[in-house]
Amino acid sequence: MSAFATDPVANLQTLIRCPSVTPAEGGALSALAAMLEPLGFTVSRVMAEEEGTPDIENLYARHGASGPHLMFAGHTDVVPVGDEAAWSHPPFAAAIAGNMLYGRGAVDMKGGIACFVAAVARVIEKNGALPGSLSFLITGDEEGPAINGTIKLLQWAAEKGERWDACLVGEPTNPDRLGDMIKIGRRGSLSGLLTVHGVQGHAAYPHLADNPVRGIIKLTEALMHPAFDGGTENFQPSNLEVTTIDVGNAATNVIPAKATAKFNIRFNDSWTVETLRAEILRRLEKAAADETLRPGRQPIRYDIQWSDRPSHVFLTRSAALIESLSGAITRITGRTPELSTTGGTSDARYIKDYCPVVEFGLVGQTMHMVDECVAVADLEKLTEIYQAFIEDWFRHAGL
Amino acid sequence: MSAFATDPVANLQTLIRCPSVTPAEGGALSALAAMLEPLGFTVSRVMAEEEGTPDIENLYARHGASGPHLMFAGHTDVVPVGDEAAWSHPPFAAAIAGNMLYGRGAVDMKGGIACFVAAVARVIEKNGALPGSLSFLITGDEEGPAINGTIKLLQWAAEKGERWDACLVGEPTNPDRLGDMIKIGRRGSLSGLLTVHGVQGHAAYPHLADNPVRGIIKLTEALMHPAFDGGTENFQPSNLEVTTIDVGNAATNVIPAKATAKFNIRFNDSWTVETLRAEILRRLEKAAADETLRPGRQPIRYDIQWSDRPSHVFLTRSAALIESLSGAITRITGRTPELSTTGGTSDARYIKDYCPVVEFGLVGQTMHMVDECVAVADLEKLTEIYQAFIEDWFRHAGL
Repeated sequence: MSAFATDPVANLQTLIRCPSVTPAEGGALSALAAMLEPLGFTVSRVMAEEEGTPDIENLYARHGASGPHLMFAGHTDVVPVGDEAAWSHPPFAAAIAGNMLYGRGAVDMKGGIACFVAAVARVIEKNGALPGSLSFLITGDEEGPAINGTIKLLQWAAEKGERWDACLVGEPTNPDRLGDMIKIGRRGSLSGLLTVHGVQGHAAYPHLADNPVRGIIKLTEALMHPAFDGGTENFQPSNLEVTTIDVGNAATNVIPAKATAKFNIRFNDSWTVETLRAEILRRLEKAAADETLRPGRQPIRYDIQWSDRPSHVFLTRSAALIESLSGAITRITGRTPELSTTGGTSDARYIKDYCPVVEFGLVGQTMHMVDECVAVADLEKLTEIYQAFIEDWFRHAGL
Repeated sequence: MSAFATDPVANLQTLIRCPSVTPAEGGALSALAAMLEPLGFTVSRVMAEEEGTPDIENLYARHGASGPHLMFAGHTDVVPVGDEAAWSHPPFAAAIAGNMLYGRGAVDMKGGIACFVAAVARVIEKNGALPGSLSFLITGDEEGPAINGTIKLLQWAAEKGERWDACLVGEPTNPDRLGDMIKIGRRGSLSGLLTVHGVQGHAAYPHLADNPVRGIIKLTEALMHPAFDGGTENFQPSNLEVTTIDVGNAATNVIPAKATAKFNIRFNDSWTVETLRAEILRRLEKAAADETLRPGRQPIRYDIQWSDRPSHVFLTRSAALIESLSGAITRITGRTPELSTTGGTSDARYIKDYCPVVEFGLVGQTMHMVDECVAVADLEKLTEIYQAFIEDWFRHAGL
């Protein structure tokens, strides 16, 4: 057996056995450091704090001093186990049964880390060195508030002078089978809180009142309809969901004074946060003046509060990065991965400000569920994909 | 000074000084009994109880044994005083200042009772008797849950064999000046709770979820639009208000599983409770199948719960009753009162099942407010109107 952590199954079992439910470090970063240091990585443990949030431990590890510089990004924290009694195997035991390895974090995403460590270990074992630099940027706050994680760790590293040429995020990206899908970008996400102000009154005297429910229905309908766009070459159509409407009026014979609605829009590269806000304001302004539902009334009185952390849309255009990964996947699995921008946001949205970023990992089907598990065969296959990708990427990047 | 309670101002001061905030009797019914017994009334005090509601004292008093039989209906309970420090005169002091009498219940509706007692006392003092029977049906639960009040008192009296030919309710009916308005009917009131069932999910994967907010907007809009009718000869257009929409979803990135809305419709004599429910169900069914806002979706899944105490619409058609009252008002005030069916429901909706009923009392502007008050001159004028009405009605009814 190698002194290096070349076995992804052993690596993953070690990591799963650290109960690192956010915000607990649970020994997971120490275990990772113990895998990386023998390979020649310089490991930094970075504590991040912010009032009102738990302190979080993060890890940054670099191998090599010269470029090109490839980053692997991910997280060792995991979501809670849920109903522990419902698990077939204890969530932190890393039991193998029927060719599956069970445990919280198996696919999201200790599995991805375990495979990348094994891949790097194999490259170093084979070549004795790397043709450039390779870093691990690992947070303990991806499943929590995400305030003391990737954002601060990137800032910390950048302030120390770290620069990267490309990044692979090891989140589970495959819907059904290993090799299905690479994420090459993400939609943006923008949320808002809409408040309509009316005039309270008795339900029997509606002319003396102004029911804000009529206004909130009118305005939220204008937000949802018509569609914002029909999609673009690389993106689905933008979509807005009104996630809640609340009035909280318990009295059947009273017209309330106020109604609120929250909405969230996932938007494609037809829009920026700024143009989208302008479009939403335009829709609200137009609907506020429309008299349907409120004949003879003054325009609807409303205000809007935007969420303070919108996610910007992005699309990665690095051919070297995408083709190295896609080619490696096809060679190992025989599949041509879809280049996708679907799904929710991820920490890639922060990394894209520093370097081109793509995402590829295990099959996500059991993530966050009871009996989260990974096929043992997938761990070996993903390690081979990562290894081929690392070798290819350095070959491309070094040209 | 008469031994009879012929002075409405003195009667009202006595009643206001009894702090009968629902459900407290506060001495008000005892004071009323002390006015009626010297006039020859047989007074019954009727306690009503029901689990989950406060016990309530009510009063029924009858003068005479033969027909025709006129009922005066009202309540001695009053709403809370609100911010007592904001009153110019203590709310239970019945102070007179600047020709106004101040106190909680001054117009709603101890004032109406005080005037009717004075009117009856004057008729009896003048004629020595009444040309038939006259009853007071007075509840202590009009401003509260209204479960242990008029409904039960009517049942109690009817079971004892009481039958009435007509009823006057002494609630404040005049918007601006004494003589403005008689109520000759009331719209019906029907409430419902609408629930839309969706499928919970992540806001980034709306195709895997089914947002019930889209459904609740679609359905509530169909309830409000188009108008139910354009009004009828005696009634305003029916009107529906959605009084609340609630989802209660705190997570911006989650599509909720359920949305609810409550609505209340005030309807005219184009409808019965039954035809209106059918129309609402027809609208919901049609809107549920409409694909706007939910393209390609199955029909909206919803259910509806109707309130268990709808109010039926009614219109009083007794010419003797309406003309006696209207004529008396015109003779005393010089005004021709509007025969109206506007406004909220009142206890008249229960009385109308026993006999024709109309409503006329003081000017309602200060009811339920701080500094509730009545013009002293209005008390004398209303007493004269009531006296003329009583004499006229017995003349008509005795023919």
